[in-house]
Amino acid sequence: MAGQEVSNKQVILKDYVVGFPKESDMEFKTSKINLKLPEDSNGILLKNLYLSCDPYMRSRMTKHDRPTYVESFVPGSPIMGYGVSKVLDSRHPDYKVGDVVWGITGWEEYSLISSPQFFFKIEHTDVPLSYYTGILGMPGMTAYAGFYEVGSPKKGDRVFVSAASGAVGQLVGQLAKLNGCYVVGSAGSKEKVDLLKNKFGFDEAFNYKEEKDLDAALRRYFPEGIDIYFENVGGKMLEAVLSNMRLHGRIPTCGMISQYNLEQPEGVHNLFEIIAKRIRMEGFIVFDYYHLYPKYLEMILPHIREGKVSYVEDVAEGLESAPAALIGIYSGRNVGKQLVVVSRD
Amino acid sequence: MAGQEVSNKQVILKDYVVGFPKESDMEFKTSKINLKLPEDSNGILLKNLYLSCDPYMRSRMTKHDRPTYVESFVPGSPIMGYGVSKVLDSRHPDYKVGDVVWGITGWEEYSLISSPQFFFKIEHTDVPLSYYTGILGMPGMTAYAGFYEVGSPKKGDRVFVSAASGAVGQLVGQLAKLNGCYVVGSAGSKEKVDLLKNKFGFDEAFNYKEEKDLDAALRRYFPEGIDIYFENVGGKMLEAVLSNMRLHGRIPTCGMISQYNLEQPEGVHNLFEIIAKRIRMEGFIVFDYYHLYPKYLEMILPHIREGKVSYVEDVAEGLESAPAALIGIYSGRNVGKQLVVVSRD
Repeated sequence: MAGQEVSNKQVILKDYVVGFPKESDMEFKTSKINLKLPEDSNGILLKNLYLSCDPYMRSRMTKHDRPTYVESFVPGSPIMGYGVSKVLDSRHPDYKVGDVVWGITGWEEYSLISSPQFFFKIEHTDVPLSYYTGILGMPGMTAYAGFYEVGSPKKGDRVFVSAASGAVGQLVGQLAKLNGCYVVGSAGSKEKVDLLKNKFGFDEAFNYKEEKDLDAALRRYFPEGIDIYFENVGGKMLEAVLSNMRLHGRIPTCGMISQYNLEQPEGVHNLFEIIAKRIRMEGFIVFDYYHLYPKYLEMILPHIREGKVSYVEDVAEGLESAPAALIGIYSGRNVGKQLVVVSRD
Repeated sequence: MAGQEVSNKQVILKDYVVGFPKESDMEFKTSKINLKLPEDSNGILLKNLYLSCDPYMRSRMTKHDRPTYVESFVPGSPIMGYGVSKVLDSRHPDYKVGDVVWGITGWEEYSLISSPQFFFKIEHTDVPLSYYTGILGMPGMTAYAGFYEVGSPKKGDRVFVSAASGAVGQLVGQLAKLNGCYVVGSAGSKEKVDLLKNKFGFDEAFNYKEEKDLDAALRRYFPEGIDIYFENVGGKMLEAVLSNMRLHGRIPTCGMISQYNLEQPEGVHNLFEIIAKRIRMEGFIVFDYYHLYPKYLEMILPHIREGKVSYVEDVAEGLESAPAALIGIYSGRNVGKQLVVVSRD
């Protein structure tokens, strides 16, 4: 039985990107999609509600010589990314019509997902659904896993977070405060610095663009050194941090957004600090920690409901605004978690 | 009661060193020393037998802006380093005349150690005493702690060791083989490469000076990537290794000898690999592991006695040869563990 065929607006990656991505690297296309799955499908048909703009997506725009942790996008096809979606049709036993899910979907109005095993069903809808692109989704789990599982925090630890007002950073800082740590964040504007101090409860925060000498800035905020550096930016900031780490410090290494658009990433010259201070620098990817998601939700949902954890979103309205929203995160234009509303229901 | 006063030849650091150390950065001085300790001393009086030349000593020749993991030498005073020594007099309850000990002593014929709490008493003398500057001393413990405690080896792991014929590297490779790993080493001459393959039982070895493209060399020996990189050299080798690590690889970070004489260490540009491959790069210093020394001895002594573990020393005769021996390790002139014989008894 044939179902309803509707038009489906899509955001297409035109070609692999070198250097800074531009809006013109993407284009819109309208295709047709049947909202009824064929009988031999094992998939689900989604209506996309909220799309997530995340720094790691830059890597998917590049053609890599060797395989890396995420596959490259396919030029000519829609951008893919985390999103919150409603199930319009399902031929998969785990999902039924009307379910709301989050997982990797297409940047389009409707997506046909043929292997939907990696979607999470959203059970708690008393909080905004858009939160599942951020604090209740991949970025939230990233902050949680990186801080607790990789960072090994102890009460009283001195914690530094870069890109601290972003989706991950804002939560890391708040988790650190809940854990009895001293927390300083860096961000790229006065507005963001104010957010860190006044909304997210960081002990201190600074605008890295206004610091000529990052090393001196860190010495000012951490006269006794840094126990945990939650690394989101790489490059010169990492170099300055290494010089300011304490003995047996940990660097949960989550991202290096300052480097993603450079053809040649900056060199870090003082890696000997890793030896001198017995630093553990450890990369992690949220994929390896999703088994902890139920435990994370159980911890974070009450904090959100009771207002003990704050969360700031930067919301772009409409799929048309998606390319600008995505490239904006690489220049730090967003304030808080960047997401795109495709549809509110 | 006054004791016997004898002449005491010493190797003095003339001044802090910038760049590559030279023999002329050191000078000989002959002073006098009383072989009987004063009655109010709590120390020991040592006759030095064997002195150890170790890469970390370069850091002690530099004047550092901020404190680092070892204190700088004092210009005008003798070089200090690990050595094997005989106790000629003792006013400390833990040591008695005739004991043979290893620990940090002076580069001189006789040393007065006023706080001798960090010396190890040598109990097993059926093996050469000089071994306590290497495989049975600090470098041996370094290899053991770095490989087992930091490297978290599993049977079948693919292990790469740089500076592999040195005091630490030769043992790391053999421990890895005993642990059922595949092991490749790099060194700087054909002679050393032959040693690695024929004496120490590495599966493969290569001369890094003959490889124009270190990345390609590593791909040749590790088509499936490296699980453990025992890091002794830093710089370009580290960069090439990072591109060839496997998922969840470990980098016990022991030294970066290629960088010690550079005024500006080389930059490492591909640290993003730490994230993409979830690498744990962890610096360590043997000081933190000396509590494991008895356990280590229990493991390694039978292997040495049964010939299951080989050990190669490069022996310089006489205190006069010490400056050349020390600077030789920074150009890789030594083959195996570099030590200096001051006296054989």
